[in-house]
Amino acid sequence: MPGDRWASEVTVVGFDGDDTLWHSEDAFARAQERLVDLLGVHASDADVLARLQAIERRNLELFGYGIKGFTLSMIETAIQVSDGTVPVAHIERILETGREMLARPVELLAGVAETVPLVAASYRIVLVTKGDLLNQESKIARSGLAELFESISILSEKSTASYSGILRRLDVAPEQFVMVGNSELSDAQPVVEIGARAVLVPYGITSLHELGHSADRSSPRLRILQRIDELPALLEGRKEAGPSPAI
Amino acid sequence: MPGDRWASEVTVVGFDGDDTLWHSEDAFARAQERLVDLLGVHASDADVLARLQAIERRNLELFGYGIKGFTLSMIETAIQVSDGTVPVAHIERILETGREMLARPVELLAGVAETVPLVAASYRIVLVTKGDLLNQESKIARSGLAELFESISILSEKSTASYSGILRRLDVAPEQFVMVGNSELSDAQPVVEIGARAVLVPYGITSLHELGHSADRSSPRLRILQRIDELPALLEGRKEAGPSPAI
Repeated sequence: MPGDRWASEVTVVGFDGDDTLWHSEDAFARAQERLVDLLGVHASDADVLARLQAIERRNLELFGYGIKGFTLSMIETAIQVSDGTVPVAHIERILETGREMLARPVELLAGVAETVPLVAASYRIVLVTKGDLLNQESKIARSGLAELFESISILSEKSTASYSGILRRLDVAPEQFVMVGNSELSDAQPVVEIGARAVLVPYGITSLHELGHSADRSSPRLRILQRIDELPALLEGRKEAGPSPAI
Repeated sequence: MPGDRWASEVTVVGFDGDDTLWHSEDAFARAQERLVDLLGVHASDADVLARLQAIERRNLELFGYGIKGFTLSMIETAIQVSDGTVPVAHIERILETGREMLARPVELLAGVAETVPLVAASYRIVLVTKGDLLNQESKIARSGLAELFESISILSEKSTASYSGILRRLDVAPEQFVMVGNSELSDAQPVVEIGARAVLVPYGITSLHELGHSADRSSPRLRILQRIDELPALLEGRKEAGPSPAI
């Protein structure tokens, strides 16, 4: 019976963008490696990253998420870690890194190009992302998937309030919505909390913003998949993905 | 007869945020003055500003509008103008300036606190802004006006396409919409171009982004006011503001 499957009531599928549809965090990781190299004479790798994480957390309230704020935080880290002795050429290199990250071509994750159109054929699909407005718009436009989405929401924070607002605008009840994303804190936790469903597809690299946080994975409204191409089977009840061991 | 007045068909009034409802460009101007001071030993005021304008224009496609991108462009300008000899302490000062701009309290323009509620009593009102997502949201929240707006749109660019999208979502025809703002390029030109009406209320300081541009002020669908508190009279047909001399 259709009523018995996990997602039987779902009519709208929300997708996260960064690290769910296309690669993003790998570029942040490479930028951090470069920063660690530049500052190697001043501090250990772990110290540089700890300082960057602390500065990013302090700036988050003013900067929000995204590459521009990350670049400003890297410059601040370089100045702090070096006690103001960092060569200006290194700061130039950090600025360049930020511009390279923003200009980077959109590279879809494995399975995305096939899975998203497949899901769109049976469900209303929406994109729910966060980060720099123009950068997100540009990635969506270049992804080749924009036309499939009924709506695109770029949020400053993915909270229970912002998800509730999206469901209101879409005119769907929580049980009719499932969110698919890589982040426990942004894509799973607040969605499950408002009574909707979430499918977590971990990316493999965790953002500095999320390090040290952990989420409750015990909700019956949460499923974990290893790859996004397992999603159609889960939605159609052909597969029952369960909570996975820690990644 | 009501059908005779300029705005007789209008049902929705759009307001711009920065430099229409609250001060913004004055902080950019002060930051530019500070940059000019910091770089005075390397170049003339005019040269520093010309370089900043060129760097901002080049970065616009990647950064979009807003304080974070402006801060990155100021740092790049300092490095270029000084041929890489700018003291790191100056770069720290620029970072600090950016953070101060983001944290700045919202200061409403004269007449706004009275005019917006008055207009909201007779029309649907919407807010249409551009800039850094989180910074705009934070200013709207702190303005004390958020509850009056039916919807809030934060755009990466105010184009004919983005205004058409907003009118579609609001389900209004162009002749039913009037946009109120300080920018000829963002608030007037594209709005008039799609057949809607625009009321320009100039701010007095022009953004570096708009310097050197000029717009056609001859459209019958454009009106120019000196102060926002003249708006209710214009909408109700008690005042016929005409194109003003150059400001």
